[in-house]
Amino acid sequence: MRIARFTTGDDPRFGFVQTEGDRTYLAVLSGDPLSMPAMPTGERIELGDGVRLLSPVIPRSKVVAVGRNYLDHVREMGGEPPTSPLLFFKPNTSVVGPDDPIVLPEWTSEVSYEAELAVVISKPCKDVEPENARAYVLGYTVANDVTARDAQRTDDQWARAKGFDTACPLGPWIETDLNPEDVGVVSRVNGETKQDGRTAEMIFDVDYLISYASKAMTLLPGDVLLTGTPAGVGRIESGDRVECEVEEIGVLANPVVRRED
Amino acid sequence: MRIARFTTGDDPRFGFVQTEGDRTYLAVLSGDPLSMPAMPTGERIELGDGVRLLSPVIPRSKVVAVGRNYLDHVREMGGEPPTSPLLFFKPNTSVVGPDDPIVLPEWTSEVSYEAELAVVISKPCKDVEPENARAYVLGYTVANDVTARDAQRTDDQWARAKGFDTACPLGPWIETDLNPEDVGVVSRVNGETKQDGRTAEMIFDVDYLISYASKAMTLLPGDVLLTGTPAGVGRIESGDRVECEVEEIGVLANPVVRRED
Repeated sequence: MRIARFTTGDDPRFGFVQTEGDRTYLAVLSGDPLSMPAMPTGERIELGDGVRLLSPVIPRSKVVAVGRNYLDHVREMGGEPPTSPLLFFKPNTSVVGPDDPIVLPEWTSEVSYEAELAVVISKPCKDVEPENARAYVLGYTVANDVTARDAQRTDDQWARAKGFDTACPLGPWIETDLNPEDVGVVSRVNGETKQDGRTAEMIFDVDYLISYASKAMTLLPGDVLLTGTPAGVGRIESGDRVECEVEEIGVLANPVVRRED
Repeated sequence: MRIARFTTGDDPRFGFVQTEGDRTYLAVLSGDPLSMPAMPTGERIELGDGVRLLSPVIPRSKVVAVGRNYLDHVREMGGEPPTSPLLFFKPNTSVVGPDDPIVLPEWTSEVSYEAELAVVISKPCKDVEPENARAYVLGYTVANDVTARDAQRTDDQWARAKGFDTACPLGPWIETDLNPEDVGVVSRVNGETKQDGRTAEMIFDVDYLISYASKAMTLLPGDVLLTGTPAGVGRIESGDRVECEVEEIGVLANPVVRRED
């Protein structure tokens, strides 16, 4: 099942995504499926003009992200593989949705895409073991862990480098039926493939990451866990269009702009 | 003016703090002064039995904290003074209020207090210059930037070391009339003074920190900015009682427990 968050010009609503041939519809839901049972209203809207998909979730608390979780990416960055998951935060003010611009801050001249599988938490999650972790997952979406690489190098902590506004595109929707163990994670810039990995290559798998994060702190419904990026990261510039794709979920596409443009 | 958030057993409410002799009263407000004009209801409650002060704010987005912002503390930690503010995040799940226990996680054996002046943001704040920063401040409170020092040393990023549940006591209330430029910042453990600094010793002052953070990312109403801790940090153990005090605001006191106790 796919859950989208969207607007037709007024307040955000949620809908189940239904595909018929090459047409896609949203079966509108009443309320917020992240905090209550989702009830279809009967209304159905075709995806297209006048419908804008939004980030499927705005975390009420946090995005917990994981660094250096694919060995090939660790090697390209010149670091050592971590002995435990390297956790960091992205604030909810960094979250944007499909087709929203990634706005390059003026204080950075080197911004990179990082395509990632994102986990959306369904219920309060604390001290969970890996074998029980899936019970706390509402579903999965695609993330771009946008990173100001120059600031990441100069700043001791990554709050600025990975926390600026628009540094966390999420979407296009939440897929609730995914098995996250071995799906493709791909990025493209202006149509050219840049990253092409598989979640099976993670150093710490999804279940372990949820467990580890839940032992570090309580995860709340709507919190999002980014699971790391495969090799192939690189620069994006104003005017680029970056696509992140996770197999069986979909494509998250965002244009890149610089504010003074 | 002092704004407290409190409960008498039901939903949290807000009140103005009024002192008469050695008695303290809460003039109850309707609604949330962080998101709407505060209207006194006429009800007045004496602080004491049956009234529990809560964290005066639960950030809707983030706590942005600053590391190594007092030179004496930089020296005691053995590092170099930063050339720009060292920003990191604490999640809203780490926030607790006055008298709430600081719960030591099982994965750390070395937890430290860090008394700090905390700034509470009043309205959306982006790309603000230092000379305009105060216009975005609702007021000030006291924070304890509780830190698992061993995890801080071993983890590349401080999400776990400074982000665990209960790692961010805030309180006892928000003082709206403070001049933050030169007030005392003190901590005591079991009554013994451990830290005794002044905000005038900050490497980057409050106005500069607000400006710098607002250029890194948008600050939202209710976001909290921790401004760094003076020298004198040290361990707390289960059974301790730690007090953090900022002159002209008040005392934030918390007991320390370990969960298996």
